[in-house]
Amino acid sequence: MSLKRKDLLGMADLSVEEIQLILQTADSFKEVSGRDIKKVPTLRGKTVVNLFFEPSTRTRTSFELAAKRLSADVINFAASTSSVVKGETLLDTASNIEAMQADFIVLRHPSPGAPGILARSLRASVVNAGDGSHEHPTQALLDLFTLREKKREFKGLCLVIVGDIAHSRVARSNISALVKLGAEVRVAGPPTMMPRHIEELGVRVFFNLDEALKGADVIMMLRLQIERQGIALFPSIREYSRIYGLTPERLRLAERDVLVMHPGPINRGVEISPEVADSGASVILDQVTNGVAIRMAVLYLLSAGR
Amino acid sequence: MSLKRKDLLGMADLSVEEIQLILQTADSFKEVSGRDIKKVPTLRGKTVVNLFFEPSTRTRTSFELAAKRLSADVINFAASTSSVVKGETLLDTASNIEAMQADFIVLRHPSPGAPGILARSLRASVVNAGDGSHEHPTQALLDLFTLREKKREFKGLCLVIVGDIAHSRVARSNISALVKLGAEVRVAGPPTMMPRHIEELGVRVFFNLDEALKGADVIMMLRLQIERQGIALFPSIREYSRIYGLTPERLRLAERDVLVMHPGPINRGVEISPEVADSGASVILDQVTNGVAIRMAVLYLLSAGR
Amino acid sequence: MSLKRKDLLGMADLSVEEIQLILQTADSFKEVSGRDIKKVPTLRGKTVVNLFFEPSTRTRTSFELAAKRLSADVINFAASTSSVVKGETLLDTASNIEAMQADFIVLRHPSPGAPGILARSLRASVVNAGDGSHEHPTQALLDLFTLREKKREFKGLCLVIVGDIAHSRVARSNISALVKLGAEVRVAGPPTMMPRHIEELGVRVFFNLDEALKGADVIMMLRLQIERQGIALFPSIREYSRIYGLTPERLRLAERDVLVMHPGPINRGVEISPEVADSGASVILDQVTNGVAIRMAVLYLLSAGR
Repeated sequence: MSLKRKDLLGMADLSVEEIQLILQTADSFKEVSGRDIKKVPTLRGKTVVNLFFEPSTRTRTSFELAAKRLSADVINFAASTSSVVKGETLLDTASNIEAMQADFIVLRHPSPGAPGILARSLRASVVNAGDGSHEHPTQALLDLFTLREKKREFKGLCLVIVGDIAHSRVARSNISALVKLGAEVRVAGPPTMMPRHIEELGVRVFFNLDEALKGADVIMMLRLQIERQGIALFPSIREYSRIYGLTPERLRLAERDVLVMHPGPINRGVEISPEVADSGASVILDQVTNGVAIRMAVLYLLSAGR
Repeated sequence: MSLKRKDLLGMADLSVEEIQLILQTADSFKEVSGRDIKKVPTLRGKTVVNLFFEPSTRTRTSFELAAKRLSADVINFAASTSSVVKGETLLDTASNIEAMQADFIVLRHPSPGAPGILARSLRASVVNAGDGSHEHPTQALLDLFTLREKKREFKGLCLVIVGDIAHSRVARSNISALVKLGAEVRVAGPPTMMPRHIEELGVRVFFNLDEALKGADVIMMLRLQIERQGIALFPSIREYSRIYGLTPERLRLAERDVLVMHPGPINRGVEISPEVADSGASVILDQVTNGVAIRMAVLYLLSAGR
Repeated sequence: MSLKRKDLLGMADLSVEEIQLILQTADSFKEVSGRDIKKVPTLRGKTVVNLFFEPSTRTRTSFELAAKRLSADVINFAASTSSVVKGETLLDTASNIEAMQADFIVLRHPSPGAPGILARSLRASVVNAGDGSHEHPTQALLDLFTLREKKREFKGLCLVIVGDIAHSRVARSNISALVKLGAEVRVAGPPTMMPRHIEELGVRVFFNLDEALKGADVIMMLRLQIERQGIALFPSIREYSRIYGLTPERLRLAERDVLVMHPGPINRGVEISPEVADSGASVILDQVTNGVAIRMAVLYLLSAGR
């Protein structure tokens, strides 16, 4: 079985069957990372280029490890945004990388849609590793993998996404996938961080977190981008934390076996209290572990599908 | 067959036979990069260190890929120029790298002659990846490889190099090689960017680009270093572009089957118009592809020659 | 034989037997680095993460080469100190790395004790690559390896460490090991750079370098951290150099077969004169070569001991 597509651009494009295929494939790659020798020859002699126009050691490392465990050669190409003045130049940079016979370009870029532009022009597989506030599909896939591991079924699951919904590619990718898979999705956050017409995506909007948490099976906290949004969109970080931070008290409003997720890196004491982050409900580190397996599965399936 | 030399410092040192040997060797390595599994065990267990004192993701990536496809271990050692105060310190840095049993040091350095100084002191092979405005031999070799692929013979070929000849190591390396190989070489650019006595290298000087292009089989555009030279050496970028930029109209002055080359990265709309860069005459991306094959050949031949 | 410990945190923890085991193991790995194919499959499929919170191309490169020559996968995770505001965040960063199934975390951190904190919380092996002015055990081990190679026995050896003893993790790790191994250790430097109660570690203190050098078998020069200490702790660099710099004249005060060591990078003409650095007495480049072998031994032994 293969994905029958060259690129992974977003969750919006994927069918339920494709999502299930990726999750099933990641099962076996998760097993590889648990072995004593964490390496398979699947992509030997292939070249994966991490083309990052935004700093992200974490996601880059996860892709780098995934590629290396598949025996691919990996090149890190950290492009400073300053060198990219016009849209065409991104394509020139990518065309140059492809001319060096790269098989995969893993792209992080501040402009929504940038991976799609590359995908149409290149023969190489393009994997979206985050494009502005648009999509971050491998993050959503690792979240789904973690949910499936812990909760078995998506159908009927009540999930609350909390934070700056408007600027979050993690929220967008997850909403797209979870609604498709039959989960009940709620979003909670201050009005300034809530996109207009978000209900049309099939979610329920809450401005009161306590209300949103009632009956929740899963709480997905988003990182407060303190450097960017703290000042403009909210009176103060302390105020944000008081109204939208996840504390042990608030956690008790949800179901008994609630899971707490976070895409990382966490701001302890801001959107999540240390007690909650380190509690038995937290699956934050499982998400990180599963990220490598998901990225291995995606690279493998795109390679087979080409 | 081998190169019988430890280092690649410049095109000025190489005989016609040595150049031909490198180009022939690159033929077979180009075939490797076209395979499904782009990897040969040639340099397994060897260590290649990229020692870059100037930022250059592009050339560094090309060398890194070449080394990895030969199964060598690669270390990127990006030295900020600030940490190098005196000449001795470069040698100390390189001696330290060699003491870690590096087999190859690929050096980019702002000082002309720096690779030669290292080569004399070290047992490791030194490959010049650009030393100030002196030489950039692997760039010239990949240009020659591309020319040979498209035009078969160097003899009798009429080639025009356009731009800041005075500060260009790419021009210097190419002139040195092409004159030796029997091509007719013209240089075109403003008087402020033309080195004195350049005719003595065996080239013809043109200040009028249209004149230079008449009868040209190949046009090699140089990148305008906007950040450096734009202001001092020319009234304005727009003025430079109007007088020395390659447009579709100008292209028609050359031979019908003219090739357009550029060492990259290109400034679209400055030294080259987008229409020309993307036209059938452009072999810019072929140059990039061939760069990996040339660098594989150079590493292989220096290793064998030691 | 194995180390029966998961982590290498400092020389203070190691018994004489453990030190000897590491040195003996490094013997065979030094032989590997001298081979034509410098690679063994020992750690294939293992993941080594270099987590550096201070810039250090040199030590990072040595660990990277050691890991690659053992066939491990290596990830460089250069964390800017700015992203680490609180102590917990270091643990969060490291926990994330471990969640990606890292087997080794090589940590350089400005806070003394940081590697110990990680070691207690993680399953991965933690190797201290320098923690503030506390310890730098692999540097001491490579110094010991070099001494043993040249002098056979530690017992009875008279060794002088010269420079900023108070802020030097290299001095601290070496004193700890050498006293344990039966060497006579002297420290020399200006009073402002001498820690209080240092005699309690079993060393003799000299403020006059000439006095300290009489009868010395080994002189270990420390780097003057010009950027940090030059101004505060000493009137001027020239003054420091005149009183504590190692010159050919001073070298003659020591034993005839004296060895000169330096952890690098050296400041020529500051703490060490170029003539001494390049003399037959200098084993500075041997130290660098041995560093790779020691780090291979440490990674191997910790892996076996887990």
